[in-house]
Amino acid sequence: MAGALDGIRVVDFSRVFAGPAATQILGDLGADVVKVEAPLTGDEARYLGLTEGTEPRLGVSPSYLALNRNKRSIALDLQSEAGRKVARRLITQCDVAVHNFRPGAMKKWRLDYESVQEANPSLIYGEFFAYGPSGPLSDFGANDLALQAHSGLMSLTGEPGRPPVRVGTAVVDLHGSLALVGAVMAALYSRTQTGRGQRVEASLLLSSAHLLNYFYSEYWIDGTIRKPMGTANHLSVPNQVFPTADGSVVIIAPSDAMWQRCARALDAERLAIPRYKTVRDRQTHRTEVIEAISAVTSLLSSQEVIERLGPVKVNVAKVNNAGEAAEHPQLAESGGVTQFDYAGETVKAVSSPFRLSGTPATIQHAPPELDQHRDEILADYGFAADEVRRLEEAGAFSEGERTGRKVASAG
Amino acid sequence: MAGALDGIRVVDFSRVFAGPAATQILGDLGADVVKVEAPLTGDEARYLGLTEGTEPRLGVSPSYLALNRNKRSIALDLQSEAGRKVARRLITQCDVAVHNFRPGAMKKWRLDYESVQEANPSLIYGEFFAYGPSGPLSDFGANDLALQAHSGLMSLTGEPGRPPVRVGTAVVDLHGSLALVGAVMAALYSRTQTGRGQRVEASLLLSSAHLLNYFYSEYWIDGTIRKPMGTANHLSVPNQVFPTADGSVVIIAPSDAMWQRCARALDAERLAIPRYKTVRDRQTHRTEVIEAISAVTSLLSSQEVIERLGPVKVNVAKVNNAGEAAEHPQLAESGGVTQFDYAGETVKAVSSPFRLSGTPATIQHAPPELDQHRDEILADYGFAADEVRRLEEAGAFSEGERTGRKVASAG
Repeated sequence: MAGALDGIRVVDFSRVFAGPAATQILGDLGADVVKVEAPLTGDEARYLGLTEGTEPRLGVSPSYLALNRNKRSIALDLQSEAGRKVARRLITQCDVAVHNFRPGAMKKWRLDYESVQEANPSLIYGEFFAYGPSGPLSDFGANDLALQAHSGLMSLTGEPGRPPVRVGTAVVDLHGSLALVGAVMAALYSRTQTGRGQRVEASLLLSSAHLLNYFYSEYWIDGTIRKPMGTANHLSVPNQVFPTADGSVVIIAPSDAMWQRCARALDAERLAIPRYKTVRDRQTHRTEVIEAISAVTSLLSSQEVIERLGPVKVNVAKVNNAGEAAEHPQLAESGGVTQFDYAGETVKAVSSPFRLSGTPATIQHAPPELDQHRDEILADYGFAADEVRRLEEAGAFSEGERTGRKVASAG
Repeated sequence: MAGALDGIRVVDFSRVFAGPAATQILGDLGADVVKVEAPLTGDEARYLGLTEGTEPRLGVSPSYLALNRNKRSIALDLQSEAGRKVARRLITQCDVAVHNFRPGAMKKWRLDYESVQEANPSLIYGEFFAYGPSGPLSDFGANDLALQAHSGLMSLTGEPGRPPVRVGTAVVDLHGSLALVGAVMAALYSRTQTGRGQRVEASLLLSSAHLLNYFYSEYWIDGTIRKPMGTANHLSVPNQVFPTADGSVVIIAPSDAMWQRCARALDAERLAIPRYKTVRDRQTHRTEVIEAISAVTSLLSSQEVIERLGPVKVNVAKVNNAGEAAEHPQLAESGGVTQFDYAGETVKAVSSPFRLSGTPATIQHAPPELDQHRDEILADYGFAADEVRRLEEAGAFSEGERTGRKVASAG
């Protein structure tokens, strides 16, 4: 079966997380994604999180392998006139260009949208910023954690009365990647109606704000500032982690009807009592309700709690670690696992976060080695052999000793 | 200017977070979104998080206002044959249908994809599940917190040596909403090439797995299970919160070059020393480095730290609460704030998480009241007046006393 984006050519200048995560999804959908990397170093994500367990076997980090399948790589030195000449040719002949350089960088190189749109009016030009292209913070560098802090996400995460903590994964980056995918796809669809491309943008700032939209709404409406509540929340009781004999589970029973089912399935005598009957009752007696439930669950295994509550349609789940979740058969059954060969090993990875029945995702390429596909990419984009030789001599493809930049050692 | 999805008709049966968040984005892009709600209660999100500050003035919750603009509402009783007849007409005449009922519900009502695709071969049928349509957990109910627990996200979030905590906002729901948008948009684009629609799906499970993709990759590669580290992470030092005289900031300087700039800007004598020079040095002396930085930052205001580190391109940000973030001028400058009138007030809300230069988002409708647009929706979908009367008499639009379902009081 054909992919949804078969025939779409993407040229991707982005590095590390959000941009590469976005273009991987376009690649999974069938687009031809050219990953343009800096000579010598390549995408810093290759080294970010490289460990003693992964380096000798694979030479690249787990995050690089997680986010760079279905791409071909070419190294280009954008500091050189020849490198920028190649970049410009790629941009003016593709459907979608993506970058996450700081505001102004592409303009300095005359690779910004204004400089290329006349040569390629149907181009979709996707930019991923930290805080956006203008405004008081636009020149600031930032990463996922910086926006977890700036946005208020961190201030909502942690134990009551203790310092805030980070969300354990790069949620702002990854959410931003899907925002960029949405923007590019909307522009691609729009182009089928108008024939014209456009510039689109996403950012860590907009991603984080979208993740916090209902907290900002509440603040804008009446000034409410929420605080972290451990695993609980302010909306209902029970709605948090409970201990079991062999681990812990979350139980969420927001409505009175669900609470009755929950109480009866766990211990009717102790829990299905008038004192805990309504949402308000359970809020009023929050500590007592939580202690009463805990007293019951701590005598049962996690599996027993799940077997009692699942069938009566109470929201319940075991608190897993990432390995238990990755191994759980539901993930593969739901199409959440894909695989490819890399460095002589079969490597598993998480799929794009959706399934299309008519145009399913496929693996066309394992994550590329740096500059692995230079010749075929240049041929595909119409460069003649003698032209490639001249560009090479002019330093398009390698920094050589000119800048002496070192390979990044970690991140 | 026209929207990217002008002319696209969406019929949305989804409730609470992920589905409504997805269709709001389609509406922001110009699609006509019909929100189909249960009579009497409507979308439970109307009440989820309703507080004493918001109820008397607005009558609906902040989250409802955050996620339901650019939609028109009709109440349909899908428990009645007449209600299902109307639903079927809407589905067979729209471009995109979306639901988040449990697996099997739409089939029971003969509103599943297989039952409607022949009547509308160009239909894009979007389903949002908890764990997916099949597999050992497919019948389990779940919500955002359940998947934070199941996926391992919670196990990575918290202070070292203390219990895990929830991410303070519904990240799995909201990330899933963008996944559904991506799937629908890919299918819409594909339809312009093939003329055919398709069934697409997203889920809390696939959303959570995508958020944890590099942790699953690492586990699959060498069995590593990461643990929470408060605000720090395992990749580099410094990469966490530091105290200031008037609050706290995050400082992230992963590379040796960025560390040198950071150390010199904060206190060259104390920090720019050989002992802390390389990534490995700073990992080895992690506690000491963090204490040394803290000793410097705690004598400065947050603003002073930012003014020293920002200009030298070190990632730095203030730890804000949600109100400070919502008020920060950068958000409005980046297009992150929109507004509409509701219940006589001007209400601000967070924009869709991207900007399209050629087809910008617009506000066509404030969040609807339950069943606010019944007549005009039915007229738009070609129902004649006498037909509407007959359907009404047959109970299509109201549960009346038939089921006696109560208004949900909270969540």
